[in-house]
Amino acid sequence: MDINCDMGESYGRFRVGNDAALMPYISSCNLACGFHGGDPLTLKQTIQLAHTHKVSIGAHPSFPDLQGFGRRRMEMKLADFEALMQYQLYAVAGMVRAEVQQPLHHVKPHGALYHFLSTEKAYALALMQIMYQWDAELILYGAAHSDMHLWAAEAQVPFWAEAFMDRRYEADGTLRARQFPDAVITDPQEAVDQALQIIHEQKVRTVSGEVIDINAQTLCVHGDNEGASAILKLLSSSLQA
Amino acid sequence: MDINCDMGESYGRFRVGNDAALMPYISSCNLACGFHGGDPLTLKQTIQLAHTHKVSIGAHPSFPDLQGFGRRRMEMKLADFEALMQYQLYAVAGMVRAEVQQPLHHVKPHGALYHFLSTEKAYALALMQIMYQWDAELILYGAAHSDMHLWAAEAQVPFWAEAFMDRRYEADGTLRARQFPDAVITDPQEAVDQALQIIHEQKVRTVSGEVIDINAQTLCVHGDNEGASAILKLLSSSLQA
Amino acid sequence: MDINCDMGESYGRFRVGNDAALMPYISSCNLACGFHGGDPLTLKQTIQLAHTHKVSIGAHPSFPDLQGFGRRRMEMKLADFEALMQYQLYAVAGMVRAEVQQPLHHVKPHGALYHFLSTEKAYALALMQIMYQWDAELILYGAAHSDMHLWAAEAQVPFWAEAFMDRRYEADGTLRARQFPDAVITDPQEAVDQALQIIHEQKVRTVSGEVIDINAQTLCVHGDNEGASAILKLLSSSLQA
Amino acid sequence: MDINCDMGESYGRFRVGNDAALMPYISSCNLACGFHGGDPLTLKQTIQLAHTHKVSIGAHPSFPDLQGFGRRRMEMKLADFEALMQYQLYAVAGMVRAEVQQPLHHVKPHGALYHFLSTEKAYALALMQIMYQWDAELILYGAAHSDMHLWAAEAQVPFWAEAFMDRRYEADGTLRARQFPDAVITDPQEAVDQALQIIHEQKVRTVSGEVIDINAQTLCVHGDNEGASAILKLLSSSLQA
Repeated sequence: MDINCDMGESYGRFRVGNDAALMPYISSCNLACGFHGGDPLTLKQTIQLAHTHKVSIGAHPSFPDLQGFGRRRMEMKLADFEALMQYQLYAVAGMVRAEVQQPLHHVKPHGALYHFLSTEKAYALALMQIMYQWDAELILYGAAHSDMHLWAAEAQVPFWAEAFMDRRYEADGTLRARQFPDAVITDPQEAVDQALQIIHEQKVRTVSGEVIDINAQTLCVHGDNEGASAILKLLSSSLQA
Repeated sequence: MDINCDMGESYGRFRVGNDAALMPYISSCNLACGFHGGDPLTLKQTIQLAHTHKVSIGAHPSFPDLQGFGRRRMEMKLADFEALMQYQLYAVAGMVRAEVQQPLHHVKPHGALYHFLSTEKAYALALMQIMYQWDAELILYGAAHSDMHLWAAEAQVPFWAEAFMDRRYEADGTLRARQFPDAVITDPQEAVDQALQIIHEQKVRTVSGEVIDINAQTLCVHGDNEGASAILKLLSSSLQA
Repeated sequence: MDINCDMGESYGRFRVGNDAALMPYISSCNLACGFHGGDPLTLKQTIQLAHTHKVSIGAHPSFPDLQGFGRRRMEMKLADFEALMQYQLYAVAGMVRAEVQQPLHHVKPHGALYHFLSTEKAYALALMQIMYQWDAELILYGAAHSDMHLWAAEAQVPFWAEAFMDRRYEADGTLRARQFPDAVITDPQEAVDQALQIIHEQKVRTVSGEVIDINAQTLCVHGDNEGASAILKLLSSSLQA
Repeated sequence: MDINCDMGESYGRFRVGNDAALMPYISSCNLACGFHGGDPLTLKQTIQLAHTHKVSIGAHPSFPDLQGFGRRRMEMKLADFEALMQYQLYAVAGMVRAEVQQPLHHVKPHGALYHFLSTEKAYALALMQIMYQWDAELILYGAAHSDMHLWAAEAQVPFWAEAFMDRRYEADGTLRARQFPDAVITDPQEAVDQALQIIHEQKVRTVSGEVIDINAQTLCVHGDNEGASAILKLLSSSLQA
């Protein structure tokens, strides 16, 4: 099971997350592209850090909203959206090619865009076509409980369904929204229990107590979760045990 | 003689220049990369416009200063500068590759950065190394009266010395600064006379009246010069005559 | 009848509208506050221009979206919205006080925010309370066909219902959305006919052909409408005749 | 002796400093105005926090450079500079008036602007005239070792010379530049020793070992110094002892 984490989200003097502490424990990372975080130098340094730890490198494009950290939905015309996605992907892909002579491994939309694309087929397909045209092997990470896997099949884009070890789930398989105080799991043991249940049983317990099916190829922990480092260390030792 | 023009400098609703009117009369264009102008959709559309007119496409990176249109010098550490240049070049190069399946033809720094790099060797060499590593055929456009051609030879980067048909020259071959009212030539006949003198005699008349040598491989007209369209039409008919 | 126009929407080198040409023909202006346009120097100079022409000066706050010119709806928490409105109003009110020793005359939300507030009572009331607390005489300009006049009465905020001379109307009294090609009236005679019908008959013809009631205390023409100058001159001579 | 600290420098999700921990130990605070940090909601909340602790509230205007945290010098025309200062001061002054019904207590330029104004008389005088016109009691905080006190006397603006407890000094009384590893004092005892020497002896030890005179009315600790909280607690107990 792939373990992914959002990385490189700092912006100049404004530091977010603890990339150096987390990188040893993950297998793929999603790099902020400059629009919700991720200034060019942070981007470059995070690529080098990922390479050192043999972590697969993907792009983490966002709505253009630094102040809202990309977590606020914005109205956007399809043509503007397409060009915005292209700009972000190509900037990051170029930096990865220049720094570590590798192609981009995957694309994972960020924040409000992640949720937006899990329901808006026209926009999701537009992103997929951009990815396919750029590199037919580029993988899209998207919400496990959505129709994105169907759209990706249509667009011939490799798709990895994603589950979250540190976010709670609603009964319909969507993520508990961040405005709720219990949206994020910060207790390491609880997060690891959820991760192990997803990995070994393909199931997850929801906020209402039911256990639902979840089929994921990649598991996410949030880099700005204060407990991320403890969660990943505990998961690593649990998986080895 | 190559004729180049800055293009794609509009930003969303904020329109600058008249790209569609000028594109038929030039042979290469310098595309704003999003930091002094040039939102992603404008960038994409300008690439398509250039391709239609068989115009060579270059990147026009800038200091990050939308409000100052990249015309204000900013202090910047070398590492930040390098990453900023990479980000802008790769975003534009990717968009060009995706839209018209071509490599980037050249790089021309914008505004305050253009002048900064004509005297700051460490920064100029850093940009050249980035260009060389990306594509050894990528051409740098830079000020004719500077040592950039020497540094480019050192860095093995192809260099085209640039002269301006619509800017006045000081006696030392530098451009008359924009704070002077006579910095920009708006009269079409005067601009074309200057262009023809540069092309046919490799000379230019300065603000102090002397005629100095100037050796250029590319001639620029500014897209935001109100007279740009008239200048280019007159130059085109003069050259054919 | 008050005639208002959005002003000061330029941003550095990016010029929008033709404020100097329009100012002589209007009685109140709405000043961009820096978030969809309106850099500080433009703001200051437009205040001085308005003062010269004895035009009442209001603030024109916006969602923070320079690239989208404030015309894209953004998700925003109420607390963020309140602070954002305060920041914009106080910056403009301070500049007006410092430059022309006057209080702010009115507030008119811009673009997507204008439409958002015409239906979202909690946000509209929050803005009204901010206005009331700052200066109980500050007038809110809002859509004629909305419940804003009722909410303003509740909040004890003076309210001027606004109609548009250069935008077409739907049968329900809302503005024809900008994505439709006939949303904006550019023909001066047609705009003036609509203005005169609103002024003299309190009625407007909709896109579907019906004539509906409209009760307005202020009439708007858009500063970025290419025909704005011609519309205002024709309206001025029609009203004098 | 006044103890001041920069506050409210967070920007949305990007958190800087630990305002709540430091506020009980200082007597005046300098509020980020939105251009190097300090989104509107952070500004508002920090005003309320300062008021709770009876801390005097000043504005901390900056060059417009979020990514560089206002620590990079930018070229700027005087007219642009004046309007930019006005905009920031008025926004903050309005927020202070609205939230806690007080006038602004002081103005302290931030980062690169602080150093720029300590040598550029025309720009410093322009800021002073803006302050004087707004409120003749508004105090300017500026570098102790500079001519600012002379210019302030000329402009009739109250001036408090500022010394730093957590920055090292050069022999000429200027601050050790941030590019040097020893620019910032992070050890609490060392910072408090420097503070006590400034308070009790009006002297400070420089990096070259000499002890020079320094006459200050206010002492600064940086809110983004990791040791700020320990420094302020230790200083508080030392002063009481």
